[in-house]
Amino acid sequence: MIIDIYNHFMPKQYFDRLGDLIPGHVAVTAFPRLRTLIDLDARLKLLDRFGDYAQVLSLANPPLETIAGPEQTAELARIANDGLAEICRRHPARFPAFIASMPMNNVPACLVEIDRAIATLGARGIQIFTNVNGTPLSAPQFRPIFQKMRAHDLPIWIHPIRAPNFPDYTSESASEAEIWFSFGWPYETTAAVTRLIYSGIYDELPASRSSRTIWAA
Amino acid sequence: MIIDIYNHFMPKQYFDRLGDLIPGHVAVTAFPRLRTLIDLDARLKLLDRFGDYAQVLSLANPPLETIAGPEQTAELARIANDGLAEICRRHPARFPAFIASMPMNNVPACLVEIDRAIATLGARGIQIFTNVNGTPLSAPQFRPIFQKMRAHDLPIWIHPIRAPNFPDYTSESASEAEIWFSFGWPYETTAAVTRLIYSGIYDELPASRSSRTIWAA
Repeated sequence: MIIDIYNHFMPKQYFDRLGDLIPGHVAVTAFPRLRTLIDLDARLKLLDRFGDYAQVLSLANPPLETIAGPEQTAELARIANDGLAEICRRHPARFPAFIASMPMNNVPACLVEIDRAIATLGARGIQIFTNVNGTPLSAPQFRPIFQKMRAHDLPIWIHPIRAPNFPDYTSESASEAEIWFSFGWPYETTAAVTRLIYSGIYDELPASRSSRTIWAA
Repeated sequence: MIIDIYNHFMPKQYFDRLGDLIPGHVAVTAFPRLRTLIDLDARLKLLDRFGDYAQVLSLANPPLETIAGPEQTAELARIANDGLAEICRRHPARFPAFIASMPMNNVPACLVEIDRAIATLGARGIQIFTNVNGTPLSAPQFRPIFQKMRAHDLPIWIHPIRAPNFPDYTSESASEAEIWFSFGWPYETTAAVTRLIYSGIYDELPASRSSRTIWAA
């Protein structure tokens, strides 16, 4: 059996809410053209072509903290995580586990949601992004999140994020030719992990024998 | 024989001038610790250890346009190019050729210096940097430089350049942990060549059979 540990899906309840909050966003206007991202039947039909194969699910971008303020993202995370958990419960052979989304602009809410997603919903890790509205993951305010995941001994998936408004030249105000994505995303991952390393986190929170706490892809 | 086509050296006349113009700059305070970068005897002694080996020389950074205004860089380029040409004349076995530096904040002066450096001094190409004070090489004002090099059918070396003041996160004002250099320089090269490709330059100025006009390293 092949278990593919990094796959995105948008549960219907979450996707509908996204349409209310950011109706013109590319995640609402363009992503749905990929039916298998938002239509569970289409996804299951696709997977049937691959035989003995299972997927660990996580939400697609945008990061929750780019969609709503800190008083709203905790609810968004609950909707997303409840939705992914339900899909896993109904189709355990295809979706043996999911990775929980986090309201990163509200760290206390993250700590509550980590416990709830793992203990109540069965999440097997969390997904966060390479920057939190422009702030590095190595910033001290995010340390409690890493500490809690280390206590749970479960991994963190780090997903690259950058938008075209991050210019590649100081004389410009936006990136051109999709460089922000094609090369900017791998750069984001590299910068995020470099900053985490130099922040001392791997010494502070060494991996257990059974897991490696921080993943990046 | 091995001919190494990308090596930096600072001729004495040029290095002395740099000391007048930017006395506190790292190129003046720290680079000279590497004796072989500014001391010709030390460089020749170093090369003796490598047997049948020759180097094509070019100036080390900083780019001229970051040192002085457009009325001064043409003279700086002449000093640098005259200095490298003289070293090549005196030691043709070790230094069979050099690549000319350009006053990129003064395009008309570049066009004059290209002709002079190639016809009078024997330069076998030019070195430019991945951005000109923050402006991409694909900007229309630099096209005449590429056109002239294509007419000479000689290559352009593109050197990465970025300083710590280019932040990796939008919430910050500077890069940390030397990311601007270790990962930012390769990113610069990638972005510069991507922008050149999308600007159509490789269709406008196709390589001749004998050379490939644009190099990047």
